[in-house]
Amino acid sequence: MPPPLPESIPATLQELPPKWAHFCLGVESFLVNELGVDMEGKAFLTAFSGGIDSTALLLVLKYISRRNHGHVFALHLDHGLRAESPDEAAAAVALCKAADIPCTAIRRDVQAEALSMGMGIEEAGRHVRYALLEREREKLGAQHIALGHHLDDLCEDVLMRMLRGAGWPGISGMPGIDPDRNLVRPFLLTPKSTLRDFLHDLRVPWSQDASNADQRWKRNRVRHSILPLFVEENQSFTSSVARMWRMGRLDDDFWFRRCQMLQPGPLLAQHALEGAHQAERMRFYKHKLDAMGPGQALADSLFRLDAAWREQRIGAVIQFPGDKTAKIVSEGVVFRVKH
Amino acid sequence: MPPPLPESIPATLQELPPKWAHFCLGVESFLVNELGVDMEGKAFLTAFSGGIDSTALLLVLKYISRRNHGHVFALHLDHGLRAESPDEAAAAVALCKAADIPCTAIRRDVQAEALSMGMGIEEAGRHVRYALLEREREKLGAQHIALGHHLDDLCEDVLMRMLRGAGWPGISGMPGIDPDRNLVRPFLLTPKSTLRDFLHDLRVPWSQDASNADQRWKRNRVRHSILPLFVEENQSFTSSVARMWRMGRLDDDFWFRRCQMLQPGPLLAQHALEGAHQAERMRFYKHKLDAMGPGQALADSLFRLDAAWREQRIGAVIQFPGDKTAKIVSEGVVFRVKH
Repeated sequence: MPPPLPESIPATLQELPPKWAHFCLGVESFLVNELGVDMEGKAFLTAFSGGIDSTALLLVLKYISRRNHGHVFALHLDHGLRAESPDEAAAAVALCKAADIPCTAIRRDVQAEALSMGMGIEEAGRHVRYALLEREREKLGAQHIALGHHLDDLCEDVLMRMLRGAGWPGISGMPGIDPDRNLVRPFLLTPKSTLRDFLHDLRVPWSQDASNADQRWKRNRVRHSILPLFVEENQSFTSSVARMWRMGRLDDDFWFRRCQMLQPGPLLAQHALEGAHQAERMRFYKHKLDAMGPGQALADSLFRLDAAWREQRIGAVIQFPGDKTAKIVSEGVVFRVKH
Repeated sequence: MPPPLPESIPATLQELPPKWAHFCLGVESFLVNELGVDMEGKAFLTAFSGGIDSTALLLVLKYISRRNHGHVFALHLDHGLRAESPDEAAAAVALCKAADIPCTAIRRDVQAEALSMGMGIEEAGRHVRYALLEREREKLGAQHIALGHHLDDLCEDVLMRMLRGAGWPGISGMPGIDPDRNLVRPFLLTPKSTLRDFLHDLRVPWSQDASNADQRWKRNRVRHSILPLFVEENQSFTSSVARMWRMGRLDDDFWFRRCQMLQPGPLLAQHALEGAHQAERMRFYKHKLDAMGPGQALADSLFRLDAAWREQRIGAVIQFPGDKTAKIVSEGVVFRVKH
């Protein structure tokens, strides 16, 4: 059973200890200045598990939204995977009540859905969660879905991307804002320990997520085996990751803008390729492929495509995941997807 | 004692089993096509410890140099750190004799030099080694110093750079060629296991380097604790690193060429900054700072400099390692170094 709720949760930023009011303003600044979020009058739907991250997120958003004439909502999903999950759902609803935040609680049998969708439980959980969040966001007319990912999650994500052999800027980690999916991650550069201290000082309880200790999941192996070794070797590893993330965001925007200058449509024109450095051509190819829908193009295939283009092997076709193809023609490279 | 030398070491590529002749040609192709090395008539001085990497390197360079009318030399440095090092030096000299490769063997007391230079033993060893190699290269009139770094070393290097919080493309690992120091790394995308198989099939012996098992050195901790976890999670992690390295080389060249378009000298002109994306400005600052000599500029300080420039805080001065400064002036940013 989670510990009891405090007698009262501060209602406004002004009621917080100065240290934590300052912390909330820092999160606001990250949202507004680094992620470019316009907060004025906007509503956030928070994915609220009742764990440390999302409990802290819910409260911080409550405080900073109020300053900006906005609103905060919570959605709790009981995945039906653990015996204690109904108690956790009840605790989540109670916390929202105490904090005066509208909350929707939904129970879904994720194990059964994973079976019927032919997915792993982790993937199915994510799938169900995001679908419900998006449906609820639309229903509420909220602008953003706020996720509790913090700096420790970002470090894990960077290591996972490194493991998978991601390119740059992909390897610098998940974005802080994803306009296509209406997602924001206000805590992405905040260490988890800060969130724990925040809740502790406010005497707000949280639930433990038992699945975090489960070493079957690769993310948890990264969390419990690999990340601690990095931190042991470099005490400021997490700050290094934050720095790398900021550089990655810059380069992501730089390449995005260069790709925006291309003509839309299936043809990547010869004159655009001829004036470009190979580093640019690789991004141009990826941009065209990504625009055609799901399926990640690997660097190896992009290198093969570029070699075919450089040698002007007219008629050569390179295959990409997601039934996509690129064909060398005299006008440039034509991208297609099979439907 | 190292195992005895084989009765004969193949003298030419044609005498190798086809598999290994093909392997040697792959190394030649990496040198010529990926690193841009002109091999015709050129001489390589190999840093030859007698371990797997440099023994294989010496032989591969012997075979491919002959095809290109070039030459190979060896330099063995006995660091004087282990009881078995004189035996290893003798074995190294014997191997070069058997392979008909001119070899210089030098003994230095690296522990004493580390003390007198106030450096750690690893750093002092590297310092002494590179100084001797460069001196020998000049004496011989060789064009390149060849180092035995292979794909496993590159993986460690990438993890080390990640640990230190390097930026991009730095994080993609050590370069394959360093014209300023006359270094080439012909094996950089070759796994160590291939080198072991090569020597094993040719029945060429090698020495074990005992320091490799020493967990006191951070590189060895990365090698023995962190890298195996990555490989366990992703069997093709080393290929992922090779792919990332190739992307890093492209981006490195892309940014290098953009920075080459800047006017030389201490002023980074306002018009160059005004037309540039922040991702470019960060590289421009770093380029100017690096051109002024040793001292690594960290991203945090570059971000501070860029903020000062964006806010046009005329007169503001940002400090950088190596006694370097950047000052915001109305004509742009002026970089200086204290002498």
